[in-house]
Amino acid sequence: MEKHILVTNDDGILAPGLLALAQEMRKLGKVSILAPDRNWSGGGHVKTLDRALRVKEVRLADGSTGFASDGAPSDCVSLGVLGYFKEKVDLVVSGVNHGANLGHDVTYSGTVTAAMEAVIFDVPGIAVSLEIPEDHLDEMDYRPAAEAARAVVERVIANGLPPDILLNVNVPYLPADRLMGFLMTRQGLRVYHGRLDERVDPRGKPYYWIGGDAPTAIPERGTDVGALAEGYVSVTPLQLDLTAYRTLSDLNNWNLQEKNS
Amino acid sequence: MEKHILVTNDDGILAPGLLALAQEMRKLGKVSILAPDRNWSGGGHVKTLDRALRVKEVRLADGSTGFASDGAPSDCVSLGVLGYFKEKVDLVVSGVNHGANLGHDVTYSGTVTAAMEAVIFDVPGIAVSLEIPEDHLDEMDYRPAAEAARAVVERVIANGLPPDILLNVNVPYLPADRLMGFLMTRQGLRVYHGRLDERVDPRGKPYYWIGGDAPTAIPERGTDVGALAEGYVSVTPLQLDLTAYRTLSDLNNWNLQEKNS
Repeated sequence: MEKHILVTNDDGILAPGLLALAQEMRKLGKVSILAPDRNWSGGGHVKTLDRALRVKEVRLADGSTGFASDGAPSDCVSLGVLGYFKEKVDLVVSGVNHGANLGHDVTYSGTVTAAMEAVIFDVPGIAVSLEIPEDHLDEMDYRPAAEAARAVVERVIANGLPPDILLNVNVPYLPADRLMGFLMTRQGLRVYHGRLDERVDPRGKPYYWIGGDAPTAIPERGTDVGALAEGYVSVTPLQLDLTAYRTLSDLNNWNLQEKNS
Repeated sequence: MEKHILVTNDDGILAPGLLALAQEMRKLGKVSILAPDRNWSGGGHVKTLDRALRVKEVRLADGSTGFASDGAPSDCVSLGVLGYFKEKVDLVVSGVNHGANLGHDVTYSGTVTAAMEAVIFDVPGIAVSLEIPEDHLDEMDYRPAAEAARAVVERVIANGLPPDILLNVNVPYLPADRLMGFLMTRQGLRVYHGRLDERVDPRGKPYYWIGGDAPTAIPERGTDVGALAEGYVSVTPLQLDLTAYRTLSDLNNWNLQEKNS
């Protein structure tokens, strides 16, 4: 039976990465688009419970119809999975994000947390992000990333995903014929160089930018960062159980167990 | 040397849980308070980079001084750790949250993601949350939870925490003398019963509430949910590496590796 694929993103419904992804997903099934009406990048995993959400119909650049909500990417997934569309959603694909989501980015990223939200609802979730090249183009070509996403989603449709697992796909910025293939990876590391930038406004009051240099990616082999550095598409399975099992046994030596310690 | 403890929360700087926590933490070191100026519950892991942040001095109910920012809980941690205070921050403690943060809550929770943010900056982070009893009190007593937090933070100061690990502490709503002690736990499960609630506004336009019944906690032994159900304080070590290592090896059988598959 044809799969019903919900496509969302965190750059907003008019982002070109969303359209490229939707176009590729249409080759795999019926696509519904429900995405934020504005950019939510770095907005984290949100569940909007304190206000109602609006949804409006939007015409996309290729003439197709999408729906835009005033909620976060994860809210769009909730709306979609809980019944905004008549048909059951079989799969959620989020992206193509403008910028890679590597290492610690995964808990901040609206793209990745949208896929998390799907998995919490027992629907397979796949996040897709495209590296921004160093010479920062005005108009990026999202098609090679969307095609890579199609290859991954095809496998997910064929093989399924274990419950509680989402896929975080990152694509290096290369023409399709220069992509090296796919690597299954673990979450890597980026070292942050945050710095607080204190300024004073025209009325003499201070304000603060979270500033500093861009994080340094550690291109270790086997990681998402390493795969991109070598020109591979990185596919990282992520789980929603964050328990640090190794530490768990150590903590039992802390003698915190006794009553009223 | 005396530890410098940053206390933050996601319920906002005037929340009574924050004050109870700060008062207990003062028994362990020098406390600075930097918390959101409003409620950020369910706001997820946020890094505010697209606007500057303001910080204002606030007088708390016990006459002490705190600082309120217009950013998310994780932004407050960034501000504090990156140098808003003259002294280096040694430890971040977030809470006491109004409501437990169990199971999948951890990636949505401002309380927990504040502790995550600390760990990303290589500072130990501890999140503390208090269960809301079923008979929902108007004024909750946060002191037993704050005292439990003190016992945990004392051990963290004595023993340290491995890098990349935060602690998620949840306290059942019981008087101090009825708390059963502490259990080291893994992240449990709550089953969500989300439902979309479509309504029509006075102008005939639809709007949508993410509704449904409260999630059903599965009180499995060994989990955070199970510990609370038995009257224990739950201490769950969480890691920032979300890689699903078991799935990773399975994915290598997907034959996605070859070039241009």
